[in-house]
Amino acid sequence: MTDRSSDKFKDECGVFGVFGHKEASTLTQLGMFALQHRGQEACGIVSAEGDHFFQIRKLGLVADNFGEETLRRLPGSIAIGHTRYSTAGRKSVREAQPFSVTCQHGKIAVCHNGNLPDAERLRAELESQGAIFNSTSDTETILHSIARADAENAVEAIADVLSRTEGAFSLLFLIEGALIAVRDPRGFRPLVLGKLGDTWAVASETCAFDLIDAEYVREIEAGEMLVIDKDGLHPRFPFEKKPLSVCTFEHVYFSRPDSIIYGRSINQSRHLMGRQLAIEHPVDADIVVPVPDSGVAAAIGYAAEADISFRQGIIRNHYIGRTFIEPSQSIRSFGVRLKLNPIEDLIAGRKVVLVDDSIVRGTTSKKIVALVREAGASEVHMRISCPPTIAPCFYGVNTPRKSELIASQKTVEEVREHIAADSLGYLSLEGMLEATGMERQNVCVACWTDDYPTVISN
Amino acid sequence: MTDRSSDKFKDECGVFGVFGHKEASTLTQLGMFALQHRGQEACGIVSAEGDHFFQIRKLGLVADNFGEETLRRLPGSIAIGHTRYSTAGRKSVREAQPFSVTCQHGKIAVCHNGNLPDAERLRAELESQGAIFNSTSDTETILHSIARADAENAVEAIADVLSRTEGAFSLLFLIEGALIAVRDPRGFRPLVLGKLGDTWAVASETCAFDLIDAEYVREIEAGEMLVIDKDGLHPRFPFEKKPLSVCTFEHVYFSRPDSIIYGRSINQSRHLMGRQLAIEHPVDADIVVPVPDSGVAAAIGYAAEADISFRQGIIRNHYIGRTFIEPSQSIRSFGVRLKLNPIEDLIAGRKVVLVDDSIVRGTTSKKIVALVREAGASEVHMRISCPPTIAPCFYGVNTPRKSELIASQKTVEEVREHIAADSLGYLSLEGMLEATGMERQNVCVACWTDDYPTVISN
Amino acid sequence: MTDRSSDKFKDECGVFGVFGHKEASTLTQLGMFALQHRGQEACGIVSAEGDHFFQIRKLGLVADNFGEETLRRLPGSIAIGHTRYSTAGRKSVREAQPFSVTCQHGKIAVCHNGNLPDAERLRAELESQGAIFNSTSDTETILHSIARADAENAVEAIADVLSRTEGAFSLLFLIEGALIAVRDPRGFRPLVLGKLGDTWAVASETCAFDLIDAEYVREIEAGEMLVIDKDGLHPRFPFEKKPLSVCTFEHVYFSRPDSIIYGRSINQSRHLMGRQLAIEHPVDADIVVPVPDSGVAAAIGYAAEADISFRQGIIRNHYIGRTFIEPSQSIRSFGVRLKLNPIEDLIAGRKVVLVDDSIVRGTTSKKIVALVREAGASEVHMRISCPPTIAPCFYGVNTPRKSELIASQKTVEEVREHIAADSLGYLSLEGMLEATGMERQNVCVACWTDDYPTVISN
Amino acid sequence: MTDRSSDKFKDECGVFGVFGHKEASTLTQLGMFALQHRGQEACGIVSAEGDHFFQIRKLGLVADNFGEETLRRLPGSIAIGHTRYSTAGRKSVREAQPFSVTCQHGKIAVCHNGNLPDAERLRAELESQGAIFNSTSDTETILHSIARADAENAVEAIADVLSRTEGAFSLLFLIEGALIAVRDPRGFRPLVLGKLGDTWAVASETCAFDLIDAEYVREIEAGEMLVIDKDGLHPRFPFEKKPLSVCTFEHVYFSRPDSIIYGRSINQSRHLMGRQLAIEHPVDADIVVPVPDSGVAAAIGYAAEADISFRQGIIRNHYIGRTFIEPSQSIRSFGVRLKLNPIEDLIAGRKVVLVDDSIVRGTTSKKIVALVREAGASEVHMRISCPPTIAPCFYGVNTPRKSELIASQKTVEEVREHIAADSLGYLSLEGMLEATGMERQNVCVACWTDDYPTVISN
Repeated sequence: MTDRSSDKFKDECGVFGVFGHKEASTLTQLGMFALQHRGQEACGIVSAEGDHFFQIRKLGLVADNFGEETLRRLPGSIAIGHTRYSTAGRKSVREAQPFSVTCQHGKIAVCHNGNLPDAERLRAELESQGAIFNSTSDTETILHSIARADAENAVEAIADVLSRTEGAFSLLFLIEGALIAVRDPRGFRPLVLGKLGDTWAVASETCAFDLIDAEYVREIEAGEMLVIDKDGLHPRFPFEKKPLSVCTFEHVYFSRPDSIIYGRSINQSRHLMGRQLAIEHPVDADIVVPVPDSGVAAAIGYAAEADISFRQGIIRNHYIGRTFIEPSQSIRSFGVRLKLNPIEDLIAGRKVVLVDDSIVRGTTSKKIVALVREAGASEVHMRISCPPTIAPCFYGVNTPRKSELIASQKTVEEVREHIAADSLGYLSLEGMLEATGMERQNVCVACWTDDYPTVISN
Repeated sequence: MTDRSSDKFKDECGVFGVFGHKEASTLTQLGMFALQHRGQEACGIVSAEGDHFFQIRKLGLVADNFGEETLRRLPGSIAIGHTRYSTAGRKSVREAQPFSVTCQHGKIAVCHNGNLPDAERLRAELESQGAIFNSTSDTETILHSIARADAENAVEAIADVLSRTEGAFSLLFLIEGALIAVRDPRGFRPLVLGKLGDTWAVASETCAFDLIDAEYVREIEAGEMLVIDKDGLHPRFPFEKKPLSVCTFEHVYFSRPDSIIYGRSINQSRHLMGRQLAIEHPVDADIVVPVPDSGVAAAIGYAAEADISFRQGIIRNHYIGRTFIEPSQSIRSFGVRLKLNPIEDLIAGRKVVLVDDSIVRGTTSKKIVALVREAGASEVHMRISCPPTIAPCFYGVNTPRKSELIASQKTVEEVREHIAADSLGYLSLEGMLEATGMERQNVCVACWTDDYPTVISN
Repeated sequence: MTDRSSDKFKDECGVFGVFGHKEASTLTQLGMFALQHRGQEACGIVSAEGDHFFQIRKLGLVADNFGEETLRRLPGSIAIGHTRYSTAGRKSVREAQPFSVTCQHGKIAVCHNGNLPDAERLRAELESQGAIFNSTSDTETILHSIARADAENAVEAIADVLSRTEGAFSLLFLIEGALIAVRDPRGFRPLVLGKLGDTWAVASETCAFDLIDAEYVREIEAGEMLVIDKDGLHPRFPFEKKPLSVCTFEHVYFSRPDSIIYGRSINQSRHLMGRQLAIEHPVDADIVVPVPDSGVAAAIGYAAEADISFRQGIIRNHYIGRTFIEPSQSIRSFGVRLKLNPIEDLIAGRKVVLVDDSIVRGTTSKKIVALVREAGASEVHMRISCPPTIAPCFYGVNTPRKSELIASQKTVEEVREHIAADSLGYLSLEGMLEATGMERQNVCVACWTDDYPTVISN
Repeated sequence: MTDRSSDKFKDECGVFGVFGHKEASTLTQLGMFALQHRGQEACGIVSAEGDHFFQIRKLGLVADNFGEETLRRLPGSIAIGHTRYSTAGRKSVREAQPFSVTCQHGKIAVCHNGNLPDAERLRAELESQGAIFNSTSDTETILHSIARADAENAVEAIADVLSRTEGAFSLLFLIEGALIAVRDPRGFRPLVLGKLGDTWAVASETCAFDLIDAEYVREIEAGEMLVIDKDGLHPRFPFEKKPLSVCTFEHVYFSRPDSIIYGRSINQSRHLMGRQLAIEHPVDADIVVPVPDSGVAAAIGYAAEADISFRQGIIRNHYIGRTFIEPSQSIRSFGVRLKLNPIEDLIAGRKVVLVDDSIVRGTTSKKIVALVREAGASEVHMRISCPPTIAPCFYGVNTPRKSELIASQKTVEEVREHIAADSLGYLSLEGMLEATGMERQNVCVACWTDDYPTVISN
């Protein structure tokens, strides 16, 4: 389970869909629950019973919003669901997905994990042609383009429009009688196919299949548009072939450790990152402590490789809900303390290796190092299981602007000084890639290299 | 952070109090949040401003119930709070604490961690004298006795009544102008004193002080009644001296690993339990996997002592909220799967040591062993960081009846067979006690020995 | 339907009970809904299935709080319900009735319309004997006394305690297997018996029977304690006989016009009050306008007797719910305008007779006269369908202190001047009594005479 | 205040807008509250602060949904609000107005009282051009057309599109820096202009101005498009001139009696309808009783003209909220009884004239006649203050299909027989028109004549 503290890259979404189950929306809420780590701000389900579509979207968590009565208002044998982390601005139900509209090709609902770098331009063009927008989402531009497509039916319209769309998109469409899963030709974001008896399921991650006892069948391939209807699976490949650009940060942080991407267990990737990190940045220390929960797997790997004791020296409170009120007479590092508390007895007088997955702005890392020092650590050595993140993501991840990424503005030594660690070591790009089992030419590593696989206009 | 799955002993409560802070209720909600693991069913705060008492009690979690607006309705510089796990029956706000009443000794609010084994008899006696009961709680009998006490004031009435009360009680009272903390003479349940500038705080566990940046001062001693008013601390010892009976299960499971009891870090106790468990029950295995989250510290200790790889082979979903709807076409081990998912890649083909804190009815353990086998483990060896639990607790812990405790009905070998593990090892009583640093004559180990430190009437 | 604006005497409660219906709580919520005008602050139901009692109390209206799901949590064939207007202080669920407790006589729930003038003294006495209080309600003193009564069972305990209780009480008790209705020997507050097939119902007013299609059987007599169990009705008369003191204000304002008290339709009483008012205080005017809704029936009577046009010149907005926010740049007479709006076209240039039921502090009357003048009335003549209210009520009605009652401080001429009316006429005591059909020696008219039928200690 | 029972024509909406007030949304919620009778299903506000638009829409009443905290999330000095009665189908926030979108002409929010008979065709045409629809509302077609208009700016786009739009529309637009009020050239639905200091307000009815203490300035003229910006009022008349078709049913039922339309007080219209009804359909009777609340004003007129006693013989319960549960053992006329209760004492043995505004399906009228008979009326004479309604409305009113309108299927005598009245009299068309002060050629009376002022395609 990954950490969702504020100074992290945020994956923007999880998607889940079901075809051919009389309790489609019930399975969907379970799938969304398993994907909750991919977005906690809002969630929604659209289900379909014949040509009747039912939509419920809410701010907050799946477990708080989709109870028995709500699910009863989502009948039908096809459903798609979405968990969302917002990119920016005010939280609003308007922005929550799935979107559901009516157009000349009938009723269409859609949910999206990804981002269209070109959305601003496309939006302006659509507006100049008379389109009206209900949200600020780039997903809405896809709907407009589909509605305008001169095509025989919804399936052809979707194929036509997406074949001309550049960007990162793992999309689920719900149309009358069919569920459609599409993954962009570079395969930026994950999307997988599962099976439960005669029921098909599609999800951002395989962990969602485990919960509903479904079998993992295969990845939706990069460039595949898979139409699922009563006659079964109809894969098509409407896209021009592109080099693969699978997101490596899914291995580092976004995906759940119990998920599998391109045949590789995320937990294994992280364990190997930790081992490699110990090889690249050894240190004489007493204990290895993960920043919970995201640093655990890598810390175990580091400790094993370095033969230093692994200890859970920082305890995380998982009951976090709404915002807490801070007393006006303020508390040191209040925000971090609400979640994390070091075990003094374990840390005092010891040389500590702290393992975390990444440093974004450096604000939280600084506070954690301070917490560990206050607990009496004699030395604090920070180890990061990926290279310095120096560039924002334009493919479906919420990242600060480049100038806010501390590693883009400072050298490693300056970052170390900023977070006040005794030493700081980042995993090398090569080390990280080897840990994931992916080859350089098949992945996106733009956030560490500033070298994007597509043209970025902004 | 401890695990709250259904087949566990449940600590019935956490208490927290503040004296002398203009935002007493804000600090109290933070303290309660840090003690949320001691009870998730209901929570409540009573605050006092002069002789005005304010009470808010709710079903559910602190984070969901005590927002800014609610705290504004709890003014004053003294406050007490309570998190509750119910013993039985229907959840109801009627049963939520703190209770707050008016009687001849003025206004009195109270919250309680513990249990009075003699409550049924006392209740019947009070009823025969004309008492009316609003709840089923034994805490209400204490209030009645205090109200009836022929004493000069509330403080004397409390001292008088409690000095004659048998059982487990860590109590906080709020009266006009004072906060009173009382711990029974055997010291069954924990209770600690902290300080934040001029403000005094009392809590079930020290981890609550860490969150509000308060300093841990000392334990409320067994048999101490500490009156805190504007003139400071007024300790008194109204009880006849009794042998100490500190709860050992706090070390095994209830307390947070970052808390300290009688000078011993809970994390350290658990680590040492794990090490001792490895010595007592070694096994030839490939990996040591904790049942999250309660088995983590002991598993790390086991792995270190046995020199076997520690791996987080089971992932826990922490977003659990309200009840989830299961599809009518049911899912294998649905309840366990909602929380736990094994990492197949890590487990498949391996000999796994599973470390958990305890086995109660055996139902959940059986499902977890099954999950791990389905994930492909070649062998599953269960290790438990305490002795077989064979007897219920009557001192503030919610336990099944004796006949439901699997270890009271079956031999270890039969339990092993029931949960379908390849081997099963429990930590010895001596090993456990040594890990806690406590001496046999000072602790309660009744749930493992069926030998109670007080007379049990039922 | 009566008006609930702020400057009114407030009836403190409505009670409703059902014996012998498998949907007892459903009928009870309907009965409470029909009695909503007797209290809008809080409402509650206790139902019983064998010796299991179920209690739900809420702040707000019946229609908002007792939906299908809530009623499902109130099973059983006996139920009592209560609608409450608070006497003072902060609104709190603690004060909402029915109360439900356990004591030596078993489980007892109670709800109360009335007041015990002696409650303060009784409370102090009970506290000195060790009683604890959960509310500020005098009803709780009754429960304590019952619990202390040395009696064979709950029925005898209730009879014993009430026979010694002075004050105004129309009470419903729910005990195991029985519903008990009691009315004090002076019969201050109304209480009536109805029948629906084999089901018995008891209510504050007959209008509640109309809604559930029950037949009105008779009044619960003053001094009667009616036990209803599976064997039928068991009336008993445990009280010493006292002169009747039936509340006359029920006719003037509290009761719904479609209810019947002592055989007299409330609507008829009010109509006759209006007629008599026209005889006593004639005026040369163009139209008669009621202050809605409470003045309507009397205004129709006045207009008929005086042969002046009756017109609804002031419109009332019935959608009032929670508090409305007033703009900081304030609006004239905002509070009154939210509810009332004069029809300018009808009023402009006309001599208007305004008919209202009573003047309490005079604040609202002053604003209404001003509204009518702003709408262009050439003259405004206020007519009140009862005598000047000069004394507070101690029998279950929420009234201001004597010094706040404008008529106790000023002459009629001074009141007229204060509210800025052209003339002001109050109905005479004799005129009012004749309209109600009651004889002077059988009614309470203390609020108009300052002459109380019981000793008042405060 | 009008009656909202189920067998009525339902006005679909109320609109309210404010320009130039720092608490625009606070004034808007008050205006909406005064217009609550025009729609109770949903309500919404959009406010604007510079180019930031804020939208909140909710199911339910204004008083329940727009509290202080909600209004704080609607900052800015311009706002529009809407109360909605749904036309059909499932209630959904998706259908609640104001709509708020972004298009090439900037941000545009809109709310609408009225209907476009041609919307289905327009919708199909827009869809064929690629439009996507988020609701089933015809208002959305207007937004699409505006977004597509080849115009200089939002104002010109609106003028252009509406000048080509056929139907009934009283519209409020909120664009950056301006509030725009538009009324179709036939003036079907009302729309009026008010002023409060430097602040302009626009509302469906003048009663909304009374509440906020604003002055009624004038009607928005039929065919007027009034742009209100920081420089003041900019009226324009983009429409081809059409004959007036002002809705007469506003006088009969929709508008509040304290509102003014085309200089005529609604209360006066209704009073005169009642008088004329007495002239056209006299009857020898004892009392005139209105069906509350909608029949009150006409009943007063009838009684005055016929010189028969006016009496409120039927009492209405105004606390109606959510749905009530009916016991399974059902209650006679449950739905009607929840709202209405006859006063038996007044009715028994009397010849009663019942006055109501209209008969739609006849179902409720039948139940009311039955209630009055059960209360003992010797004769029941029904009088209706408009002609038989024989045709549905296509101009913003929710009406049943023609075949469901009882008067379109039966003669007056057959209707009388159906509702079981002793006599039945409808007001003549001429009598009704004279009462409203409008001339035949300026009004729409299609629901009584089946002769529509525009082409109706369905």
